[in-house]
Amino acid sequence: MNPHLWTISEYQQHLAKRDISAEEAVRDTLARIRQFDPALHAYIHVSETAVEEARQIDERLAQGLPVGPLAGVPVAVKDLIDTEDMPTTYGGLHFAGRRPSRTATAVARLRAAGAIVIGKTNLHEYAYGTTNENPHYGRARNPWNRAKIPGGSSGGSGVAIAAGLAMAALGTDTGGSVRIPAALCGHVGLKPTYGLVSKAGVFPLADSLDHVGPMARSVLDAALLLSVLAGPDPRDPTTVRIPPRAYHQVQPKARARVGVPKSFFFDKCHAGVAQTVQAALRTLQEHGFDLVEVDLPNAHQVPEMQNAIISSEALDVHEALLKAHPEQYGEDVRKRLESGYEIRGHQVVTATRFRRQFATEMQQVFAQVDVIATPATPITATDVGQQKAHIRAQEVLVRAHLTRYTNPWNLTGLPAITLPCGLAPDGLPVGLQLVGPRFGEMKLLAVALAAESALPWNPVAPDYR
Amino acid sequence: MNPHLWTISEYQQHLAKRDISAEEAVRDTLARIRQFDPALHAYIHVSETAVEEARQIDERLAQGLPVGPLAGVPVAVKDLIDTEDMPTTYGGLHFAGRRPSRTATAVARLRAAGAIVIGKTNLHEYAYGTTNENPHYGRARNPWNRAKIPGGSSGGSGVAIAAGLAMAALGTDTGGSVRIPAALCGHVGLKPTYGLVSKAGVFPLADSLDHVGPMARSVLDAALLLSVLAGPDPRDPTTVRIPPRAYHQVQPKARARVGVPKSFFFDKCHAGVAQTVQAALRTLQEHGFDLVEVDLPNAHQVPEMQNAIISSEALDVHEALLKAHPEQYGEDVRKRLESGYEIRGHQVVTATRFRRQFATEMQQVFAQVDVIATPATPITATDVGQQKAHIRAQEVLVRAHLTRYTNPWNLTGLPAITLPCGLAPDGLPVGLQLVGPRFGEMKLLAVALAAESALPWNPVAPDYR
Repeated sequence: MNPHLWTISEYQQHLAKRDISAEEAVRDTLARIRQFDPALHAYIHVSETAVEEARQIDERLAQGLPVGPLAGVPVAVKDLIDTEDMPTTYGGLHFAGRRPSRTATAVARLRAAGAIVIGKTNLHEYAYGTTNENPHYGRARNPWNRAKIPGGSSGGSGVAIAAGLAMAALGTDTGGSVRIPAALCGHVGLKPTYGLVSKAGVFPLADSLDHVGPMARSVLDAALLLSVLAGPDPRDPTTVRIPPRAYHQVQPKARARVGVPKSFFFDKCHAGVAQTVQAALRTLQEHGFDLVEVDLPNAHQVPEMQNAIISSEALDVHEALLKAHPEQYGEDVRKRLESGYEIRGHQVVTATRFRRQFATEMQQVFAQVDVIATPATPITATDVGQQKAHIRAQEVLVRAHLTRYTNPWNLTGLPAITLPCGLAPDGLPVGLQLVGPRFGEMKLLAVALAAESALPWNPVAPDYR
Repeated sequence: MNPHLWTISEYQQHLAKRDISAEEAVRDTLARIRQFDPALHAYIHVSETAVEEARQIDERLAQGLPVGPLAGVPVAVKDLIDTEDMPTTYGGLHFAGRRPSRTATAVARLRAAGAIVIGKTNLHEYAYGTTNENPHYGRARNPWNRAKIPGGSSGGSGVAIAAGLAMAALGTDTGGSVRIPAALCGHVGLKPTYGLVSKAGVFPLADSLDHVGPMARSVLDAALLLSVLAGPDPRDPTTVRIPPRAYHQVQPKARARVGVPKSFFFDKCHAGVAQTVQAALRTLQEHGFDLVEVDLPNAHQVPEMQNAIISSEALDVHEALLKAHPEQYGEDVRKRLESGYEIRGHQVVTATRFRRQFATEMQQVFAQVDVIATPATPITATDVGQQKAHIRAQEVLVRAHLTRYTNPWNLTGLPAITLPCGLAPDGLPVGLQLVGPRFGEMKLLAVALAAESALPWNPVAPDYR
């Protein structure tokens, strides 16, 4: 019995057959957290009620009562997301020890489906960074190589899944914060279409770019979580009223037209990453996928436009705190917030206009292809503490560069999933990002499911199997 | 036969009875323009085909063929609005003599209804100001007192109606530019709900605040124009798909609940204006209107928020021109555009957030009242060249102060109409502004129609009757 290696679907089968109890699975997860987390820093807070919650699931199962689709699943929740029964820090010192008055809708929905929140995971301070080097709650470590970052901002959630310290997790994604740690830690991360999953009870980084999304060991698990999470919420006016879909019933779709951008998404990409992704694309082609070159001529403008918006929206959220208690921020986040003062109002307007136009252009691309494929990140996990990287003799900033390929889909709000597609020559996981049309999660998941079976992978890092 | 004093409805009756021909009405208008416009500067360009167009209407009438609801109506069009058959300057030198390749949707709809565009009217340069002192095309003059401004930015349209140089007009309104000249020149101006009337072919000032709206001699005429103008347009993605309504069939509604704001909208208001509006409100009460005090506690934040948005959006539009040819702008508009560089990105985000919240608060107010009543402007028409005014010993800037009561409805997108409600002690017209709920034009016009009959008025200035 190795529940820490299982997907949710595997676990549910074992649970149904009573091979394992929810209590055993939860106790196993808690024991692993005690054993491994001191070196990994995935968790900021671990649940004290998880075992009791698991017992209640077991009791229902024993009595033959119905349980939800996530019954007994130990889920980690990024500590940017409110839980009224556990402290929620947002990764910052200003909120240390604070207990919110109300649980986030996303967490409430997971719990209503039977999930057990095993703990609150580490993140880049206020989600405003991609390395998860949190000065207050520890620098999270990559289970594939503990000298490396797990990526961020939802790094703790990424670590938890890759080290078998949770079966699935919730993250948030403003410029790639679900997909980057999933890619760097070697599993699946899904950023749904803007408006599909409620953000009520999630501390904002940049509201027009913020998304909540699942992180999981398989595409099907991500689909299972999405079925539970998706849908309008009166508490979140950005959610959209669209008909509910049974994402967990997704069927693989291999005969898909996959758009491969001819520029930008392979520019400034580390050679090892590009080779791994291109090899994966060839594998997909051999499995019946149809690769189509697509042109996104304006993608190169995305970084500047995204920066104008995220800097201004983040400063709007933090300005009062920044004025009152600047010393409580880590240096990198404080400086980044302060850099927001350099953005002028008309640049936000220009960026907002660009954003609409770019989304329209993307809509035209999706008239020709089912999904777009890109590397999830241009580099694999960098060293803890490393601020710069070199790509073809050009120096880049790790923090900003990690979001280069994920950012455009926050700007457009389009759904994007990353799944592992192999190891780079440096022995670290590489993520393949697939992007779908607006509210096209069903198609996106169908293609991802087929891609996953063409690219077999163990989502738990070798040292933790 | 004094067609220059008629409303559209009166004219249509005369036309139907053949008391007058369209050609006679148009020739009369053209003659008046030749006579009066050299002193008034209402027009930048006068149509050379209007008589021929009128003849075609007369021919159809003679043959008993159907004609549109605006058949033969001489309409003036603000020169911010494209006409492929006449030069369109946007009030600026950069576009002097330019002939657009396509006519604006709003103009095309008026023409399809039989209207005759008699000419293109003067405006504040690029619509970015409220005094209509245009350095390139002349300082437009108020027909009630030629030493005074007509207000702006659609000042030429306001002058044309008040001096009998057009029967109705098109204006645009970003902070009050339809309503301010209508109020200062003593007639009706309607800014419809954002999204009801197409802006395709209209040069933007600040897209999220820009509206196209009718200016007319009566509420019913404004309703008639709105029926023709309203409705979605594939050329303008900001237009909204709502069911068409027959605004011209509006019936008066006197037994309305009229919300009177207890603060802000009578603060910093010239005593003569406040007295005139309050006397009008008492008259309405005597006619069966129900006055209700309403609280808009956040209205005082509007000027700052509106400024952040308009400054940034206008700079986004003009930045390239401003860098290439700054010397071609008038000094006031150039300085105002340059002041946009002082706005920071996060202030635009804060303003956008405020804007949504204020709109939600307004929605709650409209659960209690049918319309809100305020003065249209806090001052009557000021002297040409006057930059500052005094209100209760406090100095205010004329340009900014004129938009104080109209601005909030651009920020919220709510429909607002101004109608004349009397003369201030200085002998100049005062506008009563009525504001309705989102897409509540039918109700707003119904209340305005009842108010108009309780407050009888001649919309043509005394010297021009």
